[in-house]
Amino acid sequence: MACITLLTDFGIQDEYAGVLKGVILNIDPTAVVIDITHGISAQNVIEAAYTLKAAFDYFPRGSIHLAIVDPGVGTDRNIIAVPFNGHLLMAPNNGLLWPIIGESLQKQTVYRVDNEKLYRQPVSRTFHGRDIFAPVAAYLSRGGRVQALGPKLPLGQVEPLGVEAPKLSGDKEIEGIVVSVDRFGNLVTNVHRSDLSRLAAGRLIIQMGGRRIEDWVENYASGKSGAPVAIMGSRDCLEIAVNGGSAAGILKVTLGAVIRVQALDNG
Amino acid sequence: MACITLLTDFGIQDEYAGVLKGVILNIDPTAVVIDITHGISAQNVIEAAYTLKAAFDYFPRGSIHLAIVDPGVGTDRNIIAVPFNGHLLMAPNNGLLWPIIGESLQKQTVYRVDNEKLYRQPVSRTFHGRDIFAPVAAYLSRGGRVQALGPKLPLGQVEPLGVEAPKLSGDKEIEGIVVSVDRFGNLVTNVHRSDLSRLAAGRLIIQMGGRRIEDWVENYASGKSGAPVAIMGSRDCLEIAVNGGSAAGILKVTLGAVIRVQALDNG
Amino acid sequence: MACITLLTDFGIQDEYAGVLKGVILNIDPTAVVIDITHGISAQNVIEAAYTLKAAFDYFPRGSIHLAIVDPGVGTDRNIIAVPFNGHLLMAPNNGLLWPIIGESLQKQTVYRVDNEKLYRQPVSRTFHGRDIFAPVAAYLSRGGRVQALGPKLPLGQVEPLGVEAPKLSGDKEIEGIVVSVDRFGNLVTNVHRSDLSRLAAGRLIIQMGGRRIEDWVENYASGKSGAPVAIMGSRDCLEIAVNGGSAAGILKVTLGAVIRVQALDNG
Repeated sequence: MACITLLTDFGIQDEYAGVLKGVILNIDPTAVVIDITHGISAQNVIEAAYTLKAAFDYFPRGSIHLAIVDPGVGTDRNIIAVPFNGHLLMAPNNGLLWPIIGESLQKQTVYRVDNEKLYRQPVSRTFHGRDIFAPVAAYLSRGGRVQALGPKLPLGQVEPLGVEAPKLSGDKEIEGIVVSVDRFGNLVTNVHRSDLSRLAAGRLIIQMGGRRIEDWVENYASGKSGAPVAIMGSRDCLEIAVNGGSAAGILKVTLGAVIRVQALDNG
Repeated sequence: MACITLLTDFGIQDEYAGVLKGVILNIDPTAVVIDITHGISAQNVIEAAYTLKAAFDYFPRGSIHLAIVDPGVGTDRNIIAVPFNGHLLMAPNNGLLWPIIGESLQKQTVYRVDNEKLYRQPVSRTFHGRDIFAPVAAYLSRGGRVQALGPKLPLGQVEPLGVEAPKLSGDKEIEGIVVSVDRFGNLVTNVHRSDLSRLAAGRLIIQMGGRRIEDWVENYASGKSGAPVAIMGSRDCLEIAVNGGSAAGILKVTLGAVIRVQALDNG
Repeated sequence: MACITLLTDFGIQDEYAGVLKGVILNIDPTAVVIDITHGISAQNVIEAAYTLKAAFDYFPRGSIHLAIVDPGVGTDRNIIAVPFNGHLLMAPNNGLLWPIIGESLQKQTVYRVDNEKLYRQPVSRTFHGRDIFAPVAAYLSRGGRVQALGPKLPLGQVEPLGVEAPKLSGDKEIEGIVVSVDRFGNLVTNVHRSDLSRLAAGRLIIQMGGRRIEDWVENYASGKSGAPVAIMGSRDCLEIAVNGGSAAGILKVTLGAVIRVQALDNG
């Protein structure tokens, strides 16, 4: 019994997410299918990429993760499958897996999914989630081998995300972006705790949306009501939050906004 | 182990969908309950009917499909159960099953659900999903017989949907309606590929929302940015889409809007 | 195999709800995890409390219910676990369980969850759902004993909800509040059928949002179109509804609004 997770921008008002599950259960009735989310902003590969990175490793080893945010569906873009840390990741070759596999790419094996015998037929030009991702995942969850999915893709053909990892300027400043705005309006960035550790010792000041943020707190309830504060969130990444309010609303920033963290000299 | 699917207009902000699952699991702890969607527009039987038609057949044979969009709950409307193509469909007798069973109605057996021994007691006047649909489905998933649900309903008493199937005028024009607006703003119509095949050969022009649409594409990424195009979508039905935008927003049309496809003479 | 239910204000656009399931399945791969809802209004403990009360008892005995609406996450507030009527309820000690356990509190045993051996390490200050609730629930669903979670909490330290139960003034008037606005715009109150039975015999008149409501109906379809009516809803509590419309929109009231029911003398 394997766990198959779904991360898409399909939303849940239509039948799309349900149909994925139907196709999977038709092939592997014992599969446990779990939604990570279907609420990625439409066609936002960056948001999808960081959300998948934040979620996949909490699932049992052996899980199969389908990440389907795919503006190029039906074009000649590839679908790739990558064994990683005991998991199997599957996504369009559009950068979605990059934050997970990019740094260690030379150690990875990337398969190009092209074994049409595993597909649902006929394959549409508009819904590869149903026709390719779901049946291939169910093949794997029944014990199929990843090598059967297709040939290895030369690593140079793996598409990057098109968003740089947080950039360090000397040891005085680091620049990242907002990769998720959660339901509470918290602005989740791609600046990880390990990025901040590369800054020089000293007080850390944040510039974002024309505002200067100096207060760091350890939990959401500690912020002054209405004032944006910095907090290391559940992804172990820097977030901007407002106690009892929406940081996104108050700062008027959204996905893709730039955040700068500056280390001030002590003394 | 049977699969029970849910398609409702309950939304997911309240406890309603969760309670359905609780009642089912209380009776059949081995049931696999899958959401097709709870996002049907409130009380929109037409949207529900075409969404169910688009989804049910992807699930394993033996699945039990509960479709609960039920403006008449608590009135004297019936609930019906219909074995169809290896599946069991259950819905209010309000047209919801019509796009699936209407064309072949004379070959179907339709049961009127009225065996109160299978209900949860007391039966409310406001939530038959919980009190009738869920326990009856769990009875069936445990191996119960559909004949035990109630007597056969005379086929003349099966309610139609009140929306005509796409109408052909000669072989020059076909008229359908928008039955779903998906999360991407794509306008999904009830004009199926088989309907279009009945038109005379020639170029197909679309009239909708006061616009004339002439471009047909094979995948969403092929449309000119911002321009509405025609595409055969994942339901194998005609959709109007906008690459990188919302056709619903640009054309300012929504559920129920009329679409006309005209075959132009070649030459 | 135990059932674990989730009721949160996380929404479903982020990875949070999915991550909970991943952590649970990692520890207990046989757990059946069911969403009651993730759509509680952000940080609204009152809405959560009455929604949980309306839902938990429909699930099989032995179910474990995680209710995570937790404005104080990471502060010194406690998490409590309470065996109740064959179920196990777990929530922050912020009043969320009060409508269920408050009335019979002296008969209950309340455990303060503090056994760090059962937690996911390291424990964050921002996401106890992932780091405490989920692993503790999976421990229990694998057969762990509730006594292992921590010591008993003195009952005087169980936080009340801060909302009074419906108040009776003599036997002529009862006052409650709106505790949920459902997807249809129905205003669901905390005035239960048993509360109304304490009023003197006679015609019941409702005052809400500056309007006087006199019509009582048995199902939603019976109301005059556009006119607010009173109805006993699926929680067996008083609701204000509008046939074919939204009572919340028409009355311009929302969560927390006061409702008064007055018994008029007959004759």
